[in-house]
Amino acid sequence: MADTQTINDMEISERAQLMPSSPIRKLAKYADAAKRNGIHVYHLNIGQPDIKTPECAIEAVRNIDRDILEYSPSQGLLSLRTKMVGYYASYGIDLSPDEIIVTSGGSEAVMFAYMACLSPGDEVIVTDPFYANYMAFAISCGAIIKSVKTTIENGFRLPSVEEFEKQITPKTKAIMICNPNNPTGYLYSKQEMFQIRDIVKKYNLYLFSDEVYRDFIYTKRPYISACHLEGIEDNVVLIDSVSKRYSECGIRIGTLITKNKAVREAVMKFCQARLSPPLLGQIVAEASMQTPAQYMEDVYDEYLSRRNFLIDGLNQIPGVYSPTPMGAFYTMVRLPVDDAEKFCAWCLTDFQYEGQTIMMAPGSGFYTSPEEGRDEVRLAYILNKDDLGKALIVLRKALEAYNEK
Amino acid sequence: MADTQTINDMEISERAQLMPSSPIRKLAKYADAAKRNGIHVYHLNIGQPDIKTPECAIEAVRNIDRDILEYSPSQGLLSLRTKMVGYYASYGIDLSPDEIIVTSGGSEAVMFAYMACLSPGDEVIVTDPFYANYMAFAISCGAIIKSVKTTIENGFRLPSVEEFEKQITPKTKAIMICNPNNPTGYLYSKQEMFQIRDIVKKYNLYLFSDEVYRDFIYTKRPYISACHLEGIEDNVVLIDSVSKRYSECGIRIGTLITKNKAVREAVMKFCQARLSPPLLGQIVAEASMQTPAQYMEDVYDEYLSRRNFLIDGLNQIPGVYSPTPMGAFYTMVRLPVDDAEKFCAWCLTDFQYEGQTIMMAPGSGFYTSPEEGRDEVRLAYILNKDDLGKALIVLRKALEAYNEK
Repeated sequence: MADTQTINDMEISERAQLMPSSPIRKLAKYADAAKRNGIHVYHLNIGQPDIKTPECAIEAVRNIDRDILEYSPSQGLLSLRTKMVGYYASYGIDLSPDEIIVTSGGSEAVMFAYMACLSPGDEVIVTDPFYANYMAFAISCGAIIKSVKTTIENGFRLPSVEEFEKQITPKTKAIMICNPNNPTGYLYSKQEMFQIRDIVKKYNLYLFSDEVYRDFIYTKRPYISACHLEGIEDNVVLIDSVSKRYSECGIRIGTLITKNKAVREAVMKFCQARLSPPLLGQIVAEASMQTPAQYMEDVYDEYLSRRNFLIDGLNQIPGVYSPTPMGAFYTMVRLPVDDAEKFCAWCLTDFQYEGQTIMMAPGSGFYTSPEEGRDEVRLAYILNKDDLGKALIVLRKALEAYNEK
Repeated sequence: MADTQTINDMEISERAQLMPSSPIRKLAKYADAAKRNGIHVYHLNIGQPDIKTPECAIEAVRNIDRDILEYSPSQGLLSLRTKMVGYYASYGIDLSPDEIIVTSGGSEAVMFAYMACLSPGDEVIVTDPFYANYMAFAISCGAIIKSVKTTIENGFRLPSVEEFEKQITPKTKAIMICNPNNPTGYLYSKQEMFQIRDIVKKYNLYLFSDEVYRDFIYTKRPYISACHLEGIEDNVVLIDSVSKRYSECGIRIGTLITKNKAVREAVMKFCQARLSPPLLGQIVAEASMQTPAQYMEDVYDEYLSRRNFLIDGLNQIPGVYSPTPMGAFYTMVRLPVDDAEKFCAWCLTDFQYEGQTIMMAPGSGFYTSPEEGRDEVRLAYILNKDDLGKALIVLRKALEAYNEK
């Protein structure tokens, strides 16, 4: 090519242009500006709990007796993976340490599952609304998100087999579920999980199952893991994380789990390329496995009580509706506004009540089509009840002021 | 699609099939087996130094005064980025904290640079041999690695402008360099850096410059960063890491740095999708910035003396040749064997000398074509001289035994 000069455009990539901004963080600049103006912002937008990390977990790094903070194995420390086997056994999930791959958060586990299993153009079916970053990871891999719609009116329960089959094409490679669900708080029933199993089996699909909230289930409905489903053992890739369980989101330790050896070998290539998951996070995660039962019970009770408090409070505000989430610590809420994204931004840029305001995640960012969920927001109940109470007052006042404009 | 049943093949993705195994880690299973058999393995294959992490860095986690290990900002802690500005200023690189994005190791920085700048089918030119994981990240993005060849005979210096221009096509989007170089230890001269600058400018390419070894330069030749080059400020994306500098590879803290605002905004979308870099690693990295000058000098002297010791020792073994690396802590070595990969495996599976053996990274894994570098290995001088001396004896004995077979 030396004879004819080639001038290339220095553009950002097609995928970067396609990448949506995170609905959870896209309003961050407005929140920062509000804070600089002295306004207290209640963060209902992000799943960053105010629950203390277990003492034994933090003590593990305080007592670290290493003098080199070296690489760990690409698959993660064997001692950590061995302890995890016990944790999963307590949920009736039978694993060996080899079947567990430690990742930099659940995020990397999703990314590697997609990278290993989905070629460009391949399709993965999610239930709308869905955790928005699945879209980002799909775009990163050139994969395509298709969706079956769940709605606030029917409490976000699973659509029929027919609705799934309408979306299945020769390019369909996987179904991705989040159970208990972020953003809806829905928990799939046994019947619904069997329905998913049957579709997965019939069309020979991967089932990516994000179950990072399994420790937070507030209903008597039993928890059915994708790993409990018989006959699709090789189809299932479990996505997990210790972030929420032990309130240690910042350590970035997740797991990718599968009985499918070919998938594990493929995932390990991506693991080796990034060398290793964080060492200190693994030390914390391993120590977290010793967390006293009392801590877990207290945290559970706290979330349950926050959920009840928030949902009651929301449904008492005129025009506001939230179903009662069965798990996780989020709820999708319908607001009496035309455009919840505008309202969320306005709360940060143009509103305050007694020096306070709220940050919420606009609902449309959790749907495949930006036309869906326009009057919805996702709220996380990760603040204490005192703050949740104040946030509810601010929301009520904000809606009044916004609708009087 | 409900009427005709679609059966899909559950295969791993095309990219996973293309992904090479890491040449640094692919023989790990043989090394594990050797260790189980009671053989001591000298690891010359991986850049995991035995140098102690600075005391102040480990003290920072020992003294952690947080009770929630929460998410950090997607871009990384501002306090860390602010301190990094001072570090770069000491190398004549003028930055603001906004221009620094904290990543999960230098690996994630390369991945995000490719993700943000390279569309599927786009080409990036590297100098052969190159850090093998660049290939893994390119495959992850659907980008294509093209190469210009450097050779052990000419000490791995930069090929001519004409050699680069032969590789430039309308799909060429970037040149990627590693300086000082892993795996060769080469340091580009001012003239070579100006040559790169001129090509980048003429064809309007991105210049991805991996400079994680800048603190380890053993020659009077001045260090020229890509960030020192005038007129291509918007083209440069600097890849960096604290891993090697402070012997803290396991904390997984790197940086992606660019003056190009569009690239930063694109990269931030990928950062937001993975939520945040590791919190504990950032605490360690920030404390590492206070490492006493004496530590850095001692470590430098240690590597310099190891380099001299290893290169002298290698060149005294009959048939072995290594150029003298100017920086980093690797060298590409020519061995008197037909197939270095077979020899490396054999050292682990079929050889021991007084209960010891060596693990090396086969050279061919660092070239775009597996036919290149067949008689080369990459060695890291990250062991103390006592161990390096023993490893040299083992290598000499292994070569004798292998060639007598």
